[in-house]
Amino acid sequence: MKRVFNFSAGPAQLPLDVLIRAQEELLSYQNIGMSIMEISHRSIHFKKVIERVEELMRELLQIPDNYKVLFIQGGASLQFSMVPLNLFKENKHASYVHSGSWSKKAIAEASKFGDIHIIASSEEQQFTYFPSFQVHQLNENTNYLHITTNNTIEGTRFTCTEELPKNGIPVVADMSSNILSEELDVSQYGLIYAGAQKNLGIAGLTIVIIREDLVGNTGVDCPTMLNYETYAKAESLYNTPPTFSIYMTMLVLEWLKELGGIPEIAKRNIEKAKIFYDFLDTSSFFSSNVKKADRSLMNIPFTTVSKELNSLFIQIAEQEGFYALKGHRSVGGMRASLYNAMPLDAVLELVAFMKQFEEKYA
Amino acid sequence: MKRVFNFSAGPAQLPLDVLIRAQEELLSYQNIGMSIMEISHRSIHFKKVIERVEELMRELLQIPDNYKVLFIQGGASLQFSMVPLNLFKENKHASYVHSGSWSKKAIAEASKFGDIHIIASSEEQQFTYFPSFQVHQLNENTNYLHITTNNTIEGTRFTCTEELPKNGIPVVADMSSNILSEELDVSQYGLIYAGAQKNLGIAGLTIVIIREDLVGNTGVDCPTMLNYETYAKAESLYNTPPTFSIYMTMLVLEWLKELGGIPEIAKRNIEKAKIFYDFLDTSSFFSSNVKKADRSLMNIPFTTVSKELNSLFIQIAEQEGFYALKGHRSVGGMRASLYNAMPLDAVLELVAFMKQFEEKYA
Ligand SMILES: Cc1ncc(COP(=O)(O)O)c(C=O)c1O
Ligand SMILES: Cc1ncc(COP(=O)(O)O)c(C=O)c1O
Ligand SMILES: [Mg+2]
Ligand SMILES: [Mg+2]
Ligand SMILES: [Mg+2]
Ligand SMILES: [Mg+2]
Repeated sequence: MKRVFNFSAGPAQLPLDVLIRAQEELLSYQNIGMSIMEISHRSIHFKKVIERVEELMRELLQIPDNYKVLFIQGGASLQFSMVPLNLFKENKHASYVHSGSWSKKAIAEASKFGDIHIIASSEEQQFTYFPSFQVHQLNENTNYLHITTNNTIEGTRFTCTEELPKNGIPVVADMSSNILSEELDVSQYGLIYAGAQKNLGIAGLTIVIIREDLVGNTGVDCPTMLNYETYAKAESLYNTPPTFSIYMTMLVLEWLKELGGIPEIAKRNIEKAKIFYDFLDTSSFFSSNVKKADRSLMNIPFTTVSKELNSLFIQIAEQEGFYALKGHRSVGGMRASLYNAMPLDAVLELVAFMKQFEEKYA
Repeated sequence: MKRVFNFSAGPAQLPLDVLIRAQEELLSYQNIGMSIMEISHRSIHFKKVIERVEELMRELLQIPDNYKVLFIQGGASLQFSMVPLNLFKENKHASYVHSGSWSKKAIAEASKFGDIHIIASSEEQQFTYFPSFQVHQLNENTNYLHITTNNTIEGTRFTCTEELPKNGIPVVADMSSNILSEELDVSQYGLIYAGAQKNLGIAGLTIVIIREDLVGNTGVDCPTMLNYETYAKAESLYNTPPTFSIYMTMLVLEWLKELGGIPEIAKRNIEKAKIFYDFLDTSSFFSSNVKKADRSLMNIPFTTVSKELNSLFIQIAEQEGFYALKGHRSVGGMRASLYNAMPLDAVLELVAFMKQFEEKYA
């Protein structure tokens, strides 16, 4: 069975051990004679799965007791609507940090429902850095502050957690592409959301971690499935949840716990990214245009010295078994996504391949 | 590898051949070196999958060209909101046939957004028949008529398709539990929706078949992910769709096509249900309380002569490998769901087991 090096930005590579376990029990989950896909979400077997996922999330991220963990469909894109619909108060005012293509969509969506203030933006520099902001810039009547902690497309990340407001204004964070990749103090946030298809599992599931006091404040005309309260009250079993996606997340979290949890994976992620950035910075052929202090550990956009060589690089890389290195169309060039499931060896192999390519074509 | 007889109402049994195929290629889809779960929804491999699912849906159901096939998350429950949000005109008036627990939820949800008229109901008889209605009862200004063509919990189905309006009022049908089980003339409907976890595949995907003129009429404040236009314009790739669920639907549809499509499966479903109902009707111990003309081919609620014997039956059945026969809590007793994937043999085995049980305990 052939496996390639898969640098996809999402849906992304899964740990091989996770896939093997899923494969082994695909026809009969824990020898019950049915696939996990074939059983009721109200069955005892599935209830244990969803409870285990919540337990592992709480353990790995040390989620405080006054937070709910919700399992929702619709992707992170649906959160762009759910956040304002659930968190707006009467004045419907929120502040957004504008750090990339995803915050742009989040802002556009929230603007349908209320008054959005962009408190910082790096748009004029093509989002090549994470815009800094100061709490005192926040209107004290703002209902929440929204940030995108990792910009999947542009390759920047938010690091200045000390800048986050401590004055009661809830911080909402889109962590779709960096959740579980580094240390995180959940208590600094009012709401965290992440599509599962990068570090949490597969597409079709979005996990929301929400402080309890932020649940239950929608208008009466909020669609039931867009109200966090629906999920909070029913343990995310109001209707049929994406059962197989939730199961896959269980396997991924078991794998992460086994290997040492966040402290260990964070160490590995820092190491992998360092190797890659060090190479980009020493190479006179390959480079990154992202500000050093703000560089993402997960998504690394890079280029050669010309468009033609970028295309050639992507083509030959694929022939050599390095997949999905093409950059997002809005940025161009290449992008290597080094999520939790990416082994160090794969990064070393990619760097070795890049050195060869440079020697040949520089 | 042990497999049991699985009568779950949903998520439900899958064809064994489908599971085996999924298992075989779980680590490397079509020998590309990556799982289907690990590749981008924008990759050529996944695009072929989603296009193939649409093609198979169109072929199997002979969907006319002026209909779109959309792939949505959130379950059929999200459709309870999306239908009114997308189909209401200025007067916000719709008519619903009230035939069971699911229509109750659909009505409650739509009532948040507009004026709902129940044109027929079987609630006073615990939904043991499908309420008949006449087109001339419809307010000519009603924006649509909503029906639930198969009532999963109560075991009734809608058969009087000649009653459907031909005067331009679009008919919206929740076909979650009977899509692809029998002949269907799509052109009689404006919109058909179905959660995938019964006859279409696994949880996490909802398929919507919608006449083109009904797309694109929401208010400006409709959440992007709740607007059918978002999906119609982007070929359901506006954001990350539930890729693995879509893939599983492809396998299920290939299986259905292979075995002869709707004409063949309809024949089998009628045969399976007939065997089961005939047994219930001849037995003096087991019975169905659903009106004969309205009996579902998919979900068959039944009882013994007492609550105690119902419980005993469920318990012993499970020991003998007949799973998920417990009825919905709102109805009690037992329920056997005989979806497309249920082989005739399993029904024969269940009936044989019931005969034995009757001999012993009657
Ligand atoms: C940071 C971020 N936010 C939001 C999204 C949108 O996610 P989805 O496709 O699940 O709606 C993505 C997708 O890549 C992302 O990376
Ligand atoms: C007829 C019908 N409609 C709607 C639903 C709700 O579906 P979901 O759980 O996907 O929201 C069901 C679920 O069983 C159903 O049978
Ligand atoms: Mg981005
Ligand atoms: Mg360089
Ligand atoms: Mg029902
Ligand atoms: Mg009888």
